[in-house]
Amino acid sequence: MADKLLIIGGVAAGTKAAATARRKDPSARITLLQDEADVSYSACGLPYWLVPGQGIARQKLVARTPDAFRSDGIEVRTRHRVEEIDTQRAIVKVHDREAGHSYNEPYDKLLIATGAHALPLKARVSESAPAVAYLRSIADADHLSSLLPGVSTVVIIGGGYIGLEMAETFTKRGLQVAIVEMMPRILPNFDETIATVVRTTLQKHGVDVFTGFPVVELDQGHVVLADGTRIRAGLVLAAMGVRPATTLAASAGIKLGKTGAIAVTAGMRTNVPNIFAAGDCVESRHVLSKQSLWMPLGDVANRQGRVAGINMAGGNAKFPGVLGTAIFQVFDLAVARTGLGPAAALTAGFDPVTEVVVVPSRARYMSNSRPLHVRLTADRITGLLLGCEVVGEDAVDKTIDIMATALWGKLRTNDLAELDFAYAPPFSPVLAPSQVAGEVLNKVVTEARATLELSMFCWVM
Amino acid sequence: MADKLLIIGGVAAGTKAAATARRKDPSARITLLQDEADVSYSACGLPYWLVPGQGIARQKLVARTPDAFRSDGIEVRTRHRVEEIDTQRAIVKVHDREAGHSYNEPYDKLLIATGAHALPLKARVSESAPAVAYLRSIADADHLSSLLPGVSTVVIIGGGYIGLEMAETFTKRGLQVAIVEMMPRILPNFDETIATVVRTTLQKHGVDVFTGFPVVELDQGHVVLADGTRIRAGLVLAAMGVRPATTLAASAGIKLGKTGAIAVTAGMRTNVPNIFAAGDCVESRHVLSKQSLWMPLGDVANRQGRVAGINMAGGNAKFPGVLGTAIFQVFDLAVARTGLGPAAALTAGFDPVTEVVVVPSRARYMSNSRPLHVRLTADRITGLLLGCEVVGEDAVDKTIDIMATALWGKLRTNDLAELDFAYAPPFSPVLAPSQVAGEVLNKVVTEARATLELSMFCWVM
Repeated sequence: MADKLLIIGGVAAGTKAAATARRKDPSARITLLQDEADVSYSACGLPYWLVPGQGIARQKLVARTPDAFRSDGIEVRTRHRVEEIDTQRAIVKVHDREAGHSYNEPYDKLLIATGAHALPLKARVSESAPAVAYLRSIADADHLSSLLPGVSTVVIIGGGYIGLEMAETFTKRGLQVAIVEMMPRILPNFDETIATVVRTTLQKHGVDVFTGFPVVELDQGHVVLADGTRIRAGLVLAAMGVRPATTLAASAGIKLGKTGAIAVTAGMRTNVPNIFAAGDCVESRHVLSKQSLWMPLGDVANRQGRVAGINMAGGNAKFPGVLGTAIFQVFDLAVARTGLGPAAALTAGFDPVTEVVVVPSRARYMSNSRPLHVRLTADRITGLLLGCEVVGEDAVDKTIDIMATALWGKLRTNDLAELDFAYAPPFSPVLAPSQVAGEVLNKVVTEARATLELSMFCWVM
Repeated sequence: MADKLLIIGGVAAGTKAAATARRKDPSARITLLQDEADVSYSACGLPYWLVPGQGIARQKLVARTPDAFRSDGIEVRTRHRVEEIDTQRAIVKVHDREAGHSYNEPYDKLLIATGAHALPLKARVSESAPAVAYLRSIADADHLSSLLPGVSTVVIIGGGYIGLEMAETFTKRGLQVAIVEMMPRILPNFDETIATVVRTTLQKHGVDVFTGFPVVELDQGHVVLADGTRIRAGLVLAAMGVRPATTLAASAGIKLGKTGAIAVTAGMRTNVPNIFAAGDCVESRHVLSKQSLWMPLGDVANRQGRVAGINMAGGNAKFPGVLGTAIFQVFDLAVARTGLGPAAALTAGFDPVTEVVVVPSRARYMSNSRPLHVRLTADRITGLLLGCEVVGEDAVDKTIDIMATALWGKLRTNDLAELDFAYAPPFSPVLAPSQVAGEVLNKVVTEARATLELSMFCWVM
């Protein structure tokens, strides 16, 4: 009899694995169990769905309905929560939330794609405090949407991707927005120049930014910070980050990694035979540092789900790891990064040098040319490109993807300076932004190498 | 005494070489001789300068004036034409077009950056035929501009980059435009799918496209094709292409390459000691095919000029070659290419496979997402990426520069499929267009390899 493939989780990794396994093995029996009512939706699209006048219908966020999966021979059970994995008997205990009863479901191969949870807000909450919303699932978005009527002020707790994206969404809905970040500045993992560009844009659009103190209390119509600052809030969006949903896996004896997410091989296998894991609940390996990191992002989940699906159907695919590439939009700005920043590069054993250049995105006489801040990091002696951060109103996604491709190809600073990019005035300056950044950093590398050679020469003498 | 560096030509390569040599050697004596009245202008910007309402002032196209060069210790002599190079005596004979006299100018190092000429129109011209304009230099643009008042119809001869860019410019000026291409279709070196997308866009914007027959005559108010077709023309733009300006070099015994352009080493040296050449008058080496090709483009000229400038000042820089990357805009479309198409790949000894995919440029529910045609070519067995062509209204420049970077890094089809690109709905679908193209072609490569391994196994048996 054909293998029974059981998948826990139905957003990105789970559905991609199911569809991939189906293509690879038309005879496999595939069942997908999803706690939520929806499957296969774009969680990353939620902030855009909530912008008025965007014309995005809710169903457009759903790539594939349960019926579409069923017509492909994949049994999808929504509102079915898995409560326990019994690795000895190769069964999972499932709770049918509609029917209100539980049952056992056997598997030959199991995929854990349980995703991540939003970090809960830990603050004193007084009786008439503003409502607290999260934005992790499509149900969260529905709930948030229902809370908005009548609200005129919102406080976003957390200055990460979701918080910044939602600052734009709320502003476009006419709300007065404040962002609270407990770290000394927003985007603490980005270069300070880049974080400053973002903060200036937020303030230009009327968003108040509070940094350096955590939220300690939600009081009547206010959010209260540790320094006593009271910020008016008709609604609170808690966007302090996420943590991997690993309780189910850990209880079953599945090993977690250093990051707290599930440890997997390149084949997306856990330490337990026949149990795979993929998506926001697992950790990844950084292609450059070779170290574990946790990258809970939709595109990573998608690629991991594909590998898991192939391997559950008997194939031998490998997930090669991540570069830590990410991008988000906040008002007219895009902010992106890939690879290692100087601190991470140092930890990984490199000798990083870094430079920030400000370059035009297109030929300077074209009206749509905008300044682009590019921070490029490379190894001082070898010139190996290590990482990049970009912020600007134009060509940010282009520049970061060129850089991600360059990192993947193990290119060096001189490669960027010499590369044959596409030039025409509407698209790029004669020297592309990546090229200028490469050239500037290449000079630093060339000088460092000359100094090293000189010192080695002296040492030999 | 410091070396006397003499540069013939002052648009892209010449001015870049002068500026680079100055930075490298502050003591060098540098003289630049320019036939035209302007130096250091963006020839690629001319079609955009001529669009009304773009707000591009003529002086904005000039990156640096002769005075700016002079203040940097570079002597710039405009309207000085070099008539002869005497390699034995290391002098050039110069004609001062203002003063009307000639003189000899000595050099220690000479750079030939004479650029390219527009191909002249060879057709019978009756007495009251429409005026013929070219668009190669800023003076050509001035002339064309002076011819436009009162003209309502224009025929563009040549369906290459300049011809297509100018079709948009003329249309935006309210002219009725026709394009004549003697080849069976426009963009004969692009995939037919891509050429068809461009032709459809031209026609949608009211541009008549005539293909398959050359222009044989300019008659009263008309252009006449070889098949007898008469097209109304108040003005003719001759944009049939360019040829390298090599007369000066060839007369001095400087070797030309197979392409007809000047042959140079990676250090931009000609066969004559102390004589360098760079820009549109020289041929380049293709990084993938290792064959000579002629790429008369502003960005290539710029990078070659930099190498020539360093080496004339005693350095040891190398120009690593080109990928043949190019991009142009026509109405809402961008059209781009990099690397080798299937025919060129075959000639270069590869076993090419090619696929065309049509993919969304951003998350499909974002209103600015547009379909993108990507044609990707790779080697059938190794999967080595060889070339790409892209057409669409969005993300064309991004996709082609990702592909150029991938070719430079010698990436394979599986690398594209696995690469960690930046994903967020406003910037990309979950799987980037480059990724989808890579995945599709990777399947073809994987199957071809499996077939090969099977046949080798059978052969061994």
